[in-house]
Amino acid sequence: MAIDVNKVRHSAAHVMAEAVLHLYPGTQFAIGPAIEDGFYYDFLLPRAIAAEDLPGIEKEMRRIITGGHTFERKEISREEAKAIFADQPFKLELIDGLEDGTISIYTQDGFTDLCRGPHVENTREIRPDAFKLRAVAGAYWRGDEKRPMLTRIYAWAFESKAALEAHLKLLEEAEKRDNRKLGRELDLFSTHEEAGPGLIYWHPKGGRFRVALENWWRDEHYKNGYEILFTPHIGKSWLWETSGHLGFYKAGMYSPMKIDEDDYYIKPMNCPFHIMIYNTNNHSYRDLPLRWAELGTVYRYERSGTLHGLMRVRGFTQDDAHIICTPDQIEGEIAEVLRFSLFMHKTLGFKEIKAYLATKPSNPEDSVGAPEMWSTALESLRKAVDKEGLAYEIDEGGGAFYGPKIDLKVKDAIGREWQLTTIQFDFNEPERFDMTYVDADGQRKRPYMVHRALLGSIERFFGVYLEHTAGAFPVWLMPDQAAVIPVGADFVDYAKQVTAKLKSAGIRALPMLSDERMNAKIRDAQNQKIPYMLIVGQREKDESKVSVRFRDGRQENGVELGAFVSQVLDKIATKALDLH
Amino acid sequence: MAIDVNKVRHSAAHVMAEAVLHLYPGTQFAIGPAIEDGFYYDFLLPRAIAAEDLPGIEKEMRRIITGGHTFERKEISREEAKAIFADQPFKLELIDGLEDGTISIYTQDGFTDLCRGPHVENTREIRPDAFKLRAVAGAYWRGDEKRPMLTRIYAWAFESKAALEAHLKLLEEAEKRDNRKLGRELDLFSTHEEAGPGLIYWHPKGGRFRVALENWWRDEHYKNGYEILFTPHIGKSWLWETSGHLGFYKAGMYSPMKIDEDDYYIKPMNCPFHIMIYNTNNHSYRDLPLRWAELGTVYRYERSGTLHGLMRVRGFTQDDAHIICTPDQIEGEIAEVLRFSLFMHKTLGFKEIKAYLATKPSNPEDSVGAPEMWSTALESLRKAVDKEGLAYEIDEGGGAFYGPKIDLKVKDAIGREWQLTTIQFDFNEPERFDMTYVDADGQRKRPYMVHRALLGSIERFFGVYLEHTAGAFPVWLMPDQAAVIPVGADFVDYAKQVTAKLKSAGIRALPMLSDERMNAKIRDAQNQKIPYMLIVGQREKDESKVSVRFRDGRQENGVELGAFVSQVLDKIATKALDLH
Repeated sequence: MAIDVNKVRHSAAHVMAEAVLHLYPGTQFAIGPAIEDGFYYDFLLPRAIAAEDLPGIEKEMRRIITGGHTFERKEISREEAKAIFADQPFKLELIDGLEDGTISIYTQDGFTDLCRGPHVENTREIRPDAFKLRAVAGAYWRGDEKRPMLTRIYAWAFESKAALEAHLKLLEEAEKRDNRKLGRELDLFSTHEEAGPGLIYWHPKGGRFRVALENWWRDEHYKNGYEILFTPHIGKSWLWETSGHLGFYKAGMYSPMKIDEDDYYIKPMNCPFHIMIYNTNNHSYRDLPLRWAELGTVYRYERSGTLHGLMRVRGFTQDDAHIICTPDQIEGEIAEVLRFSLFMHKTLGFKEIKAYLATKPSNPEDSVGAPEMWSTALESLRKAVDKEGLAYEIDEGGGAFYGPKIDLKVKDAIGREWQLTTIQFDFNEPERFDMTYVDADGQRKRPYMVHRALLGSIERFFGVYLEHTAGAFPVWLMPDQAAVIPVGADFVDYAKQVTAKLKSAGIRALPMLSDERMNAKIRDAQNQKIPYMLIVGQREKDESKVSVRFRDGRQENGVELGAFVSQVLDKIATKALDLH
Repeated sequence: MAIDVNKVRHSAAHVMAEAVLHLYPGTQFAIGPAIEDGFYYDFLLPRAIAAEDLPGIEKEMRRIITGGHTFERKEISREEAKAIFADQPFKLELIDGLEDGTISIYTQDGFTDLCRGPHVENTREIRPDAFKLRAVAGAYWRGDEKRPMLTRIYAWAFESKAALEAHLKLLEEAEKRDNRKLGRELDLFSTHEEAGPGLIYWHPKGGRFRVALENWWRDEHYKNGYEILFTPHIGKSWLWETSGHLGFYKAGMYSPMKIDEDDYYIKPMNCPFHIMIYNTNNHSYRDLPLRWAELGTVYRYERSGTLHGLMRVRGFTQDDAHIICTPDQIEGEIAEVLRFSLFMHKTLGFKEIKAYLATKPSNPEDSVGAPEMWSTALESLRKAVDKEGLAYEIDEGGGAFYGPKIDLKVKDAIGREWQLTTIQFDFNEPERFDMTYVDADGQRKRPYMVHRALLGSIERFFGVYLEHTAGAFPVWLMPDQAAVIPVGADFVDYAKQVTAKLKSAGIRALPMLSDERMNAKIRDAQNQKIPYMLIVGQREKDESKVSVRFRDGRQENGVELGAFVSQVLDKIATKALDLH
């Protein structure tokens, strides 16, 4: 029988509470839920504890677990509950907050907790080698900073030792790939708390990645029938009132700046600007579909505590586009967007991609747009994922109020899922801005509008890609594509010639000409994940050949320079994921 | 003897005042200066006048002029002046405002005006066919909206009929090329008063121009040893206090937006962000020079009355760069920037380029930086213009407080000068941000920093280039490079094939397949300044040949399609200015 890991985690939380009570009598208990990779419990302890106290708690937990105690459920009345938890004020508050109905408690080894359950049957079902206390942190009771600060103990917990170990290995691997760490080590980007957190400064090497990525993005968009727009970063309140953002999105927007007597807002989205362009001219059905893209930098409020490297920021460049089309074009357009998105992700080397379809909110008041528009839209989304043979899950009622959507998540090299693409219908703004086209029958009609971002945002994509590749990007995206390393001081001039040849061929070559030792330079180039290291010395000079060390450790000697250049140019041109 | 056109203009203003007095007795007189292309005079008239009244005034002016009246100067006391102008309240206010010293009046034909002069000797020196009244406008007395609204009559005036006619022709030509008019006709961009004036929305066709221009700009910057950065559009007040912008540039900045408890400003300049990146790492003299470029969009306050199409805006994308180098690199770096700038302008087809050197403000309190830095900097600017053999003027004392500069102005196709490039030393920010590098001697030293923009801003450059070319851009910058026009409905499919061939070769081809007549399509393509029109029909089908009409009116029949594609690709690749 499959083990329900959430039951294990939740049960382990009770065992931890019991252990804490044994070790710290007088402890008051708040809540202890299962979470994604384990559990936590919040306590008001009689004394402060720290990381070094965790092994003692773990030990006591193992003692309890091996005791083989049964979890017993009992349903009791509110009065009974209040009597049992008379000396536990947090539990009393929870009891007061419970709606009428069943109140249940669970008891193991004489320790009783207020709990809805379910739990495992016996403490032995918790593997003593499959959990690990992780950290001590502070947490306000009920998340309210005016209530007492409690001590939260976090733990990892899994169904087996192997699963715990796999998780710890993943975390270790993830830490090595942390975009903030790699960003610093590879000198790709920085953030500056004093000038404003959550704002990304792209350094020269990050800039090279971004220019290569954006050039490709623009080329492919033109090839795929898109036009590229450029729109302002600020708009007068009229624009945001008309779009509705000041109504439904104000919390994500920054406060206004005054220009003359008017309020201007920095844009959280590009759509109203694209609509203004649409509405500049009259449109016929013959003009449609329009596919209008922009690398538009938007600014949104995120609480400073949630900001995280490139992954969660306050300013980011969406690889945005809006598709404006007639109802009978919508199915084809959605299929095209999905195909295009998959092409992009596959070019970038993502192999596992999954779709998440979000449908109409169940409460009719929580959505705009005619029911038949929702069903047409959903149908086109569903057909598109079917056509591409994509695995998908449905998030019933999870669409925004303005339309249904598909999100695509890619799996990275260490198995984590990241959302990149979103394709969203919008039944709101075309109405609010009164967008129309004149159909073949001479009637003014409302077009469909779809928002889509394929990579999501350039910043976040850079973060995901950094963590996916650990900085070893494919050649075409590498800031430095080839390092040129002379074997000694006598070959510095020759190394310069080789560098010049590579550069004039369009290869981003980095001459490493300092007086450091060759091996130190090779190590440095390897740390920088430079795909090719050309070691140039006497033999190579005579034969215009070089030794090539590859980023993956391979080495080839006596490579003809011209052949090497062709090979690298081919890798760049084909956006190859391999080096050889 | 050369005619002093300003004397002519100023004298004509007096004649106009006299004529107005004859025609509208009771008129009160304010001021009537010479301006760039003529003169104006502000009156408080006994009745409203309009454009149709101007010929009558002109006629009366010609009558006075041909009367051959002498302009007589007389110096008088303040009391005499007050007596003479007793019924002229504006003049009395002017007299009260005069500093002690000489008060002079000029009289012609019995009409006396308070005036410093100088004037021509006789009204006959004003050519009756070399001036033209231009317009009637409202203007507040002393520009103060709380003071009376006066009637201003504008006039053009020149030394000769030929000069007036040349000027009117230039105006007519300029009007045809007005970037706002062409922007609308060619569907390149728009502005939207209701969403905020002075903010440019780039439409698909404008976007194609911009993408082509920016791709070239990025390529050339990389080839010329620059790195490309991307930095945020907003920064916390700390940044602008440190840079000094909140001190010396506040009037150009928008009001702050609050994020959490902090004030953030949208950037009027990119420099502080580049400096933050510089200061992220320690630098050695070996890292220098650094050439860091960014297409950075900045926002600056301009009064709404001064906004003008693409030429004067509130948000624009500078093609910005900062050069950070050692003192002994500065001369070479400046020479490089100037050479690079001239290369850009010449590639774009500007033939006449002139430099303007601005030196240190004469008052020592109006500048920062050691005198020897100013002289080194100025010397490097001077040497660079000399090396390029560039004509230049010196604007003595015209430098900013933070350093000397060179501006480059290009002459457009109808002879107007436009400033594009600016190269400015900055002795302020390196100090304020404590920028340093470690020199070969192990000492921490202050680097030189130079701001430069070659095109100035992408928006303004687009405006200048639109007016320079009247929309007939070189092929590589054209939104649509070739129109494909079938001779009739039978050739629509063939036209699609031809279009597909051009597109797959990378040519921006526009199929014109509607059921309009061929000649209407050709006219439309000509109006859009499309360089090549391919007329496809029976003869061409058989031989896979086409007829090519060029934008300049030439036509070639029986052109082999493959040869045509090669020709166009060559024009694109070489950024050719011609079509053939």
